[in-house]
Amino acid sequence: MIQTPRGTRDFLPEVMIRRNWLLDTIRSVFERFGFDPLETPAFESWELLARKGVGGEEIKNEIYYFKDKSDRELGLRFDLTVPMARVVANNPQLVLPFRRYQIGRVWRYDRPGAGRYREFWQADVDIVGSAAMDADAECITAAVAALKELGFRDFQVRLNSRKILNGLVEYAKVPKEKMADVFRSLDKLEKIGEKGVLEELSEKGIEKKKSEELLKLIGLKGRPEDILKKERERLKGVKAAEEGIAELEQVLRKARVYGIDGMITVDFSLVRGLDYYTGPIFEISVKTKQNVGSVSGGGRYDKLIGLYGGKDLPAVGISLGVERLYEIMEAEGMFRVPATLTRAFVVAVGDSVRDEAIRVARQLREKGISVQSDAGGRDMRKQLEYANRKGIPYAVFVGEKELKSGKLVLKDMKSGKQVALDIGSVVRRLGKTDK
Amino acid sequence: MIQTPRGTRDFLPEVMIRRNWLLDTIRSVFERFGFDPLETPAFESWELLARKGVGGEEIKNEIYYFKDKSDRELGLRFDLTVPMARVVANNPQLVLPFRRYQIGRVWRYDRPGAGRYREFWQADVDIVGSAAMDADAECITAAVAALKELGFRDFQVRLNSRKILNGLVEYAKVPKEKMADVFRSLDKLEKIGEKGVLEELSEKGIEKKKSEELLKLIGLKGRPEDILKKERERLKGVKAAEEGIAELEQVLRKARVYGIDGMITVDFSLVRGLDYYTGPIFEISVKTKQNVGSVSGGGRYDKLIGLYGGKDLPAVGISLGVERLYEIMEAEGMFRVPATLTRAFVVAVGDSVRDEAIRVARQLREKGISVQSDAGGRDMRKQLEYANRKGIPYAVFVGEKELKSGKLVLKDMKSGKQVALDIGSVVRRLGKTDK
Repeated sequence: MIQTPRGTRDFLPEVMIRRNWLLDTIRSVFERFGFDPLETPAFESWELLARKGVGGEEIKNEIYYFKDKSDRELGLRFDLTVPMARVVANNPQLVLPFRRYQIGRVWRYDRPGAGRYREFWQADVDIVGSAAMDADAECITAAVAALKELGFRDFQVRLNSRKILNGLVEYAKVPKEKMADVFRSLDKLEKIGEKGVLEELSEKGIEKKKSEELLKLIGLKGRPEDILKKERERLKGVKAAEEGIAELEQVLRKARVYGIDGMITVDFSLVRGLDYYTGPIFEISVKTKQNVGSVSGGGRYDKLIGLYGGKDLPAVGISLGVERLYEIMEAEGMFRVPATLTRAFVVAVGDSVRDEAIRVARQLREKGISVQSDAGGRDMRKQLEYANRKGIPYAVFVGEKELKSGKLVLKDMKSGKQVALDIGSVVRRLGKTDK
Repeated sequence: MIQTPRGTRDFLPEVMIRRNWLLDTIRSVFERFGFDPLETPAFESWELLARKGVGGEEIKNEIYYFKDKSDRELGLRFDLTVPMARVVANNPQLVLPFRRYQIGRVWRYDRPGAGRYREFWQADVDIVGSAAMDADAECITAAVAALKELGFRDFQVRLNSRKILNGLVEYAKVPKEKMADVFRSLDKLEKIGEKGVLEELSEKGIEKKKSEELLKLIGLKGRPEDILKKERERLKGVKAAEEGIAELEQVLRKARVYGIDGMITVDFSLVRGLDYYTGPIFEISVKTKQNVGSVSGGGRYDKLIGLYGGKDLPAVGISLGVERLYEIMEAEGMFRVPATLTRAFVVAVGDSVRDEAIRVARQLREKGISVQSDAGGRDMRKQLEYANRKGIPYAVFVGEKELKSGKLVLKDMKSGKQVALDIGSVVRRLGKTDK
């Protein structure tokens, strides 16, 4: 048996119907927010992915890198933001702000584990060309709206700013070359605790007093407005921090207009992995009976597009993690979709009416109903057994009697109830979804 | 400027909106025919793709082959049939017949040219587990229905059988090892003419008399039933051919029931490239003002699944070539979709009403209308200029006056007509599509 490559999966129909519902729902919300679709190739020039400030050469260990037959260096895309930045840099004719969504697969050469795959799907919206914090608030709002449409009710949006983080390390006099390292340690606060972070920072050569000060500054809790006020007092004179705080206040102000302010907390310990963020960063978690999980994240990256030869263009975006969403929704029983998209099986009662059954199926399809008829010479019992095993909700019987009377027998496969109806009534009955 | 890798493309929003409409339309028709969705990884084990009878080792030159960091040999999928065959072989629990559709990208390392890309999309339906010719007829019907739904009116379905082709070369006493070669020459009949084919066959060591006989046998024209009858007389006693002819008669009989018989011609020169076909093969062309182009093809492959360790399972399928369809539809002006999915831009008339404009946009979105409002601090003129350049059909004005009167001004951006309406009427007006 030849398996799927390590870290990749097949999605059989029952799962795919759910995934399609999930992706279609996200897409429809993104479209409602005025984002238009974009698609880019599965692989990109290695040069693009490895650019300093994006992936860097180190990324070769984390992605699928290969050469084509002309020795061109390529890599499977590891996110949807970098390809989009290239598109914008290459297409100066695009009307700004450029608002696009993109839903598709990306690949990372991670160690596969629970919920971690080498091939997975993301769903992104981005606004390019607006420096106003309205755009940040709107991206968060669009993601929240998508989560609501999927059925989630309880969210937490954690908000921070790269500028504030930069201000913090400036304040703590962390040398510039150690900044990224320090962020990585701070990012582990929830995982390894204060003590763990202090140890890591000490190993990285940061003074104990400075480290403790840093932890205090990122540990502030309370109403977003209050925290920002407190942080501003403490970091008075640190320009980057002051700028970042003013931006977050703007985001919060707009969040009230967008109606999502109630779910926002400011969390100075939020770091987010990627190098290219320059302003506000955010992460959305959903609370369910069983757990709280981050399902979405993003931020502002005003320098990324400039890296690709275009002029610098302010940009902000957010990404929904499709795999994580799918798993939570599955665990919580949130999918309200059938096991098969087929509404009815048109049963040929005997051999003499096989062609008639196909004709009835044709008529139902012409009315937009999804139906199957037998395409394999099965007898009535076998046809019904198949319909049953597939979970097809209705059977429509076509026999000599039905043809004579002009009425078809419609059977609800679950309840077993049968009723004789003309074809118009069958169409009406099958056209309704059972919820 | 970093371009997309050779043979691949970006799809900017205007194009993507058309492509999505194309793919969504195909998908909805496939679902109406009772096919459920399947998804498989972008890359597969090299072992799978290179299996004898599928791609063979030679295929390494025609696809993207690479190794992962553990030296596993992998390749980007070159079609959707081979991965599906693996899925069926690996999942004996699947209810048969297994009917699935799959729409997605595939990759081939072809020389890029007009309409030929290294990354392109296919849309397939397959029925696994039915040996009856009903299944072949149904796959063709589903493809024709999809083409109709896309707006095509004039089709030609060319039908042949690998069994008949095998019978023909048996009849012409072509040695078995030369069969594939002979097929390849016959396949070029339209391109290089009878003379060209005769030359090629002679180079391949086939007697001239035999070659002429072959050409006569594959050149029969006329009503499908008549041609099959004639061919049967000529190939009397050649078992493979007799079987193939009987099968095509069955396909034709069912095609009548499915209502597609009028568009079918039998064409013994149809070969189709892939090695794995075993029975009926078919190709669909669409006729438009400007040309006739093959847009779909498929056939029966009863031995493919057995190659992957499962037991032999009869199977048949058809594939729609998305790129070819897109190009023809574009050339013929067949797309009836807008340049942007946004229905209206909610214009903030002045700075004092910015928040109110966002709130109106929220209300419209809650009613399912796709709208944008300003997220970049633009003045009214700039907002309108943007809406205009994007081709957004309506503008909704929010100003002090509108807020006081409770009526919004709705402007048709094309005609310039304006009308003051309450928000309910705006929703109704925007909810209708302009066709």
